[in-house]
Amino acid sequence: MSTKLQNDLLLRAARLEPIERAPVWFMRQAGRYLPEYRAVRAKHSFLEMVRTPELAAEVTIQPVDLVGVDAAIIFSDILVVPEAMGMHLVVEEGKGGPRFPEPIRLYKQIKELNAGDPRKQLSYVTDAIKLTKERLNGRVPLIGFSGAPWTLFAYMVEGQGSKDFHIAKQMLFTRNEDAHLLLRKLSDVVAQYLIAQIEAGADIVQIFDTWAGVLAPDDFKEFSLEYIAEIVRLVKEHTQNRAPIIVFCKGANHSLGELAATGCDVVGLDWTIDIAEAKALIGNDVALQGNMDPAVLYTTESVIAEKVNTIAERMEEPRGHIFNLGHGITPEVDPANARAFVRAAKTAYDKVRAPRSV
Amino acid sequence: MSTKLQNDLLLRAARLEPIERAPVWFMRQAGRYLPEYRAVRAKHSFLEMVRTPELAAEVTIQPVDLVGVDAAIIFSDILVVPEAMGMHLVVEEGKGGPRFPEPIRLYKQIKELNAGDPRKQLSYVTDAIKLTKERLNGRVPLIGFSGAPWTLFAYMVEGQGSKDFHIAKQMLFTRNEDAHLLLRKLSDVVAQYLIAQIEAGADIVQIFDTWAGVLAPDDFKEFSLEYIAEIVRLVKEHTQNRAPIIVFCKGANHSLGELAATGCDVVGLDWTIDIAEAKALIGNDVALQGNMDPAVLYTTESVIAEKVNTIAERMEEPRGHIFNLGHGITPEVDPANARAFVRAAKTAYDKVRAPRSV
Repeated sequence: MSTKLQNDLLLRAARLEPIERAPVWFMRQAGRYLPEYRAVRAKHSFLEMVRTPELAAEVTIQPVDLVGVDAAIIFSDILVVPEAMGMHLVVEEGKGGPRFPEPIRLYKQIKELNAGDPRKQLSYVTDAIKLTKERLNGRVPLIGFSGAPWTLFAYMVEGQGSKDFHIAKQMLFTRNEDAHLLLRKLSDVVAQYLIAQIEAGADIVQIFDTWAGVLAPDDFKEFSLEYIAEIVRLVKEHTQNRAPIIVFCKGANHSLGELAATGCDVVGLDWTIDIAEAKALIGNDVALQGNMDPAVLYTTESVIAEKVNTIAERMEEPRGHIFNLGHGITPEVDPANARAFVRAAKTAYDKVRAPRSV
Repeated sequence: MSTKLQNDLLLRAARLEPIERAPVWFMRQAGRYLPEYRAVRAKHSFLEMVRTPELAAEVTIQPVDLVGVDAAIIFSDILVVPEAMGMHLVVEEGKGGPRFPEPIRLYKQIKELNAGDPRKQLSYVTDAIKLTKERLNGRVPLIGFSGAPWTLFAYMVEGQGSKDFHIAKQMLFTRNEDAHLLLRKLSDVVAQYLIAQIEAGADIVQIFDTWAGVLAPDDFKEFSLEYIAEIVRLVKEHTQNRAPIIVFCKGANHSLGELAATGCDVVGLDWTIDIAEAKALIGNDVALQGNMDPAVLYTTESVIAEKVNTIAERMEEPRGHIFNLGHGITPEVDPANARAFVRAAKTAYDKVRAPRSV
């Protein structure tokens, strides 16, 4: 269907196939820490960049050229999904994060949200994927993504980011049926959206549950995990399992075993668990991604290398391992340090002795 | 030494002694959710309230009268410690959180910080404790507190709150000796400060490590846990163990066993772990406090009771249990819901059957 990949390390790592070294990429790698991104951003608004395939493709490819990562991730935003469902999304320059001026609070609003296939409303994303695939010309895989239902729910009900998401949780705890109705609608749309991305050429997809960590374990299972599992099932079924799925639930280390059991291929880790412990909890049938404290990119080449090597030593072998941070790369990072991380990751397992017996 | 306590449930719970029911209090219970607090606050600045024993005592006692909690916690702020060490602390009305306009970045600044006994600079706190003890007249115990070294370090080096504390972590990762020098100074001061609070009449003290959760497990052990353990040791030694010590490291569920092993009496829990699992990890020799999602206070009396009862069921018996939220109570909470939580907590174990065998 498409050009053969020259570097398919990420896909082989996700499928637990033999790899000569572990691949590396960054969450939010097409971003403000790169002067070349800021140059594009200076001429266009954020949403204009998201909605214009030509611009999205340009910044998507930048880190492949500039930082040397083993994958591109399509430049977009998780909040395009609620927008496609009918919500008005506002991103005002220099006024904090994106917001929905009319948050979802009533049953009537939930009922009125579009729950159909979003590929018409989100054709700019699938077009951007097609264009990026063309431009990449097989150099590295392209990652598609979506926010997880709970994280989208949290933004849609609060109307914006929040310290404690207590308005969103109020709906979870006091209006259980409404909450599940909205989460169900979101799951259906997210599944269709990921399927559309894979059909457009995404080689692998990631589900981001950025706000998983604000939920207690029982609530996470009821309001997040259940829906992620359903999405994984639907996507695998409708795409004949042709693209691996990465699930990243930040702050949900209490449920790593259950996450691995969703049928996903890769579990993303934040940095608040030892990767050896995560591996012991999850077993050898699911790959692991991430685990580095993003603040390490504010240090020096030697500290970065040391911290990268520690993760490799604890992971013991590159099989089923994808280097990444435990959260998105932040705007103040020096690109030289991002490159140092990539260099260190590419050689980290050279330094690890033969696997110890466990 | 002081009036005999009429209600010493908190102290008996902390010491694992038999109790007829589990005590309940709230972190940040003297706060903006109470109209009576806001009435005092309308006439005085935050720092004026902190520094005036008469005002501090007044708002410290409010939740005992108004909410029915089983303990008072002295009204103060964790940032009085860096201020006592020589930093200029600014709290501007309506301008976000407190900040230090001259953050600690250089070795020279660390060297210049006062590291002696802070009881002269913080006599307003010990005076407030003495006055509050008088006013309480033995009704309930009084809790003293301090920020943990890492949390204080994070504010002092950043100069204010932060999303990722990358400037503070930069010092941890690249200037290890400077970081340990500052943490060592902070530990000495915090230990002396807690000893002074106990000598002034605090019946029990809590160490708050609000930002524990931003550190990876290894970093938490090196830069936080080690110093907390030293503080616990020093305080116990200098006060003949007469006041129990609660340690609350938010987001450090990866290290609960190690926290319990510091010699503290109570481990505080956030809401991202099942309390039964925490009990299994920690064992029966240390009491447990907290574990409720603070957002539950935005629901209804019946939801609150249900969630309180679930914690009691999982804890199985009141021995060694202190009801609390997993973080501070927030300003928008309806005081009626705080009272509902207290009522539910006071009867929760009535509904739990005889302990199951484990």
